[in-house]
Amino acid sequence: MRQTIRRDRLIGPGDRIVIGLSGGADSVTLSVLLPPVAREVGAEVVALAHLNHGLRAAADEDQRFCAEFAARLGLPFETEAADVRALARERRTSIEDAGRIARYAFLRRVMAGRAATRIAVAHNRNDQAETVLLRLFRGAGPKGLASIHPVAGPVIRPMLDVRRAAIDAFVEAEGIAFREDATNRDVTIPRNRVRHELLPYLAEHVGEGIVDVLARQAVIAREDADWLEQAATESARSLVLEEETGVSVDVRGLRELHPAIARRVIQIGCGLLETATPRLPAQGRSAESKRGRRFIGFDHVDAVLKLAAGAGLEGAGGTTGAETIDLPGLRVKHSRGRLFFEPRPSDPGRAGRRRGRPPRV
Amino acid sequence: MRQTIRRDRLIGPGDRIVIGLSGGADSVTLSVLLPPVAREVGAEVVALAHLNHGLRAAADEDQRFCAEFAARLGLPFETEAADVRALARERRTSIEDAGRIARYAFLRRVMAGRAATRIAVAHNRNDQAETVLLRLFRGAGPKGLASIHPVAGPVIRPMLDVRRAAIDAFVEAEGIAFREDATNRDVTIPRNRVRHELLPYLAEHVGEGIVDVLARQAVIAREDADWLEQAATESARSLVLEEETGVSVDVRGLRELHPAIARRVIQIGCGLLETATPRLPAQGRSAESKRGRRFIGFDHVDAVLKLAAGAGLEGAGGTTGAETIDLPGLRVKHSRGRLFFEPRPSDPGRAGRRRGRPPRV
Repeated sequence: MRQTIRRDRLIGPGDRIVIGLSGGADSVTLSVLLPPVAREVGAEVVALAHLNHGLRAAADEDQRFCAEFAARLGLPFETEAADVRALARERRTSIEDAGRIARYAFLRRVMAGRAATRIAVAHNRNDQAETVLLRLFRGAGPKGLASIHPVAGPVIRPMLDVRRAAIDAFVEAEGIAFREDATNRDVTIPRNRVRHELLPYLAEHVGEGIVDVLARQAVIAREDADWLEQAATESARSLVLEEETGVSVDVRGLRELHPAIARRVIQIGCGLLETATPRLPAQGRSAESKRGRRFIGFDHVDAVLKLAAGAGLEGAGGTTGAETIDLPGLRVKHSRGRLFFEPRPSDPGRAGRRRGRPPRV
Repeated sequence: MRQTIRRDRLIGPGDRIVIGLSGGADSVTLSVLLPPVAREVGAEVVALAHLNHGLRAAADEDQRFCAEFAARLGLPFETEAADVRALARERRTSIEDAGRIARYAFLRRVMAGRAATRIAVAHNRNDQAETVLLRLFRGAGPKGLASIHPVAGPVIRPMLDVRRAAIDAFVEAEGIAFREDATNRDVTIPRNRVRHELLPYLAEHVGEGIVDVLARQAVIAREDADWLEQAATESARSLVLEEETGVSVDVRGLRELHPAIARRVIQIGCGLLETATPRLPAQGRSAESKRGRRFIGFDHVDAVLKLAAGAGLEGAGGTTGAETIDLPGLRVKHSRGRLFFEPRPSDPGRAGRRRGRPPRV
């Protein structure tokens, strides 16, 4: 944990840290280990923060456990209750997504209230490996493979290089109590299937080191994505225009780009549209919900590239005279040498169907 | 197949094509379908070429089958026998690797003998998806995820966008005979485990489209790797020196690079060493064997980056005063502001052990 903190400069002198505490082995371990490590670098843990998701019968017991745990550590405790089920309905997203959104919103409120500078959460290396696989299966491309970042705004993940086995061994050896989340065992949740079925299978048949290999893959993918993103942002600066009615991209310039960069310029175009027209196609969603709901996958980008290339370059298997294609939440038009990205009314039924959506894991 | 040929410009007017024929459903299908498609673009299939690997009891029957099959199609047939087991021993590589090396060497001989310009092999989209997973588990990084290329020198893969199910349906519907390879069912071979266990599991739990998703991932990874490679080659031009005794890299310049590019400059350095000193560390190996045996994985590159960064940047978990590290087949020394890449005597027992090798699938 010290190595990760130093390498990725997670905390520095004067930092005030809020720790997200679910009550599970991971966040309990983080809450025990981070305060002394923080002090070493002149930083301070100022609160443990627990969101009551109200989803499980045991939710209130979880909350009591966390309050007592914080008291034993001598740390301030903050808690709130959220109606995650209602939020999921309202945002038309999954319970898991809604929980994540509610959790980070709560942690940011605690951070503001405590004049804190960092939010520490307890993702570990196994979470990272699971995310790599989930994103790969979803067709998320290299940016997706980058998976969980050690730093994302004020959020830091000091345990991202720690294997779950080490955490389990720690709580066992130290006799530290924690809460088991029964839903962790529910393999109808994709992450749990990866955790309890796929990764153990790979550990047996590929090698015990599979979690490390996948986590390293995430690091490389993050570096690559970062560099490619820089190059694409540079290109987008001259090719992408933000206009009253939407966003447009110069087709000739786009066609001259290397495909690796062209793809990203299109992603940037889609992203700008989401920012430029905040009330369309869905109201007030955060970056998290955008990622969860309006996923522009690489087959969508492919469709836009084909639209830019024009019908002339299509194969014999299917020519297209299409001047317009629909993607989740937006419409792309090829007209007068430009691609116009425009919002369209939310229509989840049709979104992405034309070109086939990648399977959602 | 037509679409793939057109999109990736696999064949053009005047091309003379040798098809690699194992006798399996894939290569039998390719041999039936490619000749008419080639004629459409003014190219010609000039021979079917079968290498007798001498590994299976049925090898001679396979060979007879292929000869008769070629005769029925009215195409010239070439065959040769190889001692793949002996080659594997000699090269200290796996039977699968040795078979691949022998096969491509044979196909190149046939190409030369027939004054051909292309070698067509029957890899399909499932092979592609399997390779993506195998490379991911091996920790091969984005270049590895690029997996099977539709064009590699004279080798072309016209069926790379065709799913295995489509091929099976085709031979079934057309009543085309083919040979089953019993070793295909041997799940101690990593690829077969991926084929017969992992991908069916993913198709069931992630979605039927998993093969398509992984194949698309390979396309994106190929584009990204290509662009990153271009950028790194540009940087390497000013930082990497080929010298009498090996290859060296300017450390200050390397440290100023984005990590995504720095990693690749190191890979380029390792690659130059292999080219510059062709008789060390292993004699006369081809690109294939190099990839198979002297795999410089991203943990090796990490070790070199740390060596360049110097002991001062190491974490508390383990400082290193090391000025020298050993990688598979080569030694890297940090001295006088440069990293020196030098060949070292072949020593498979120690190779890569220092930093731990990624698991081999």
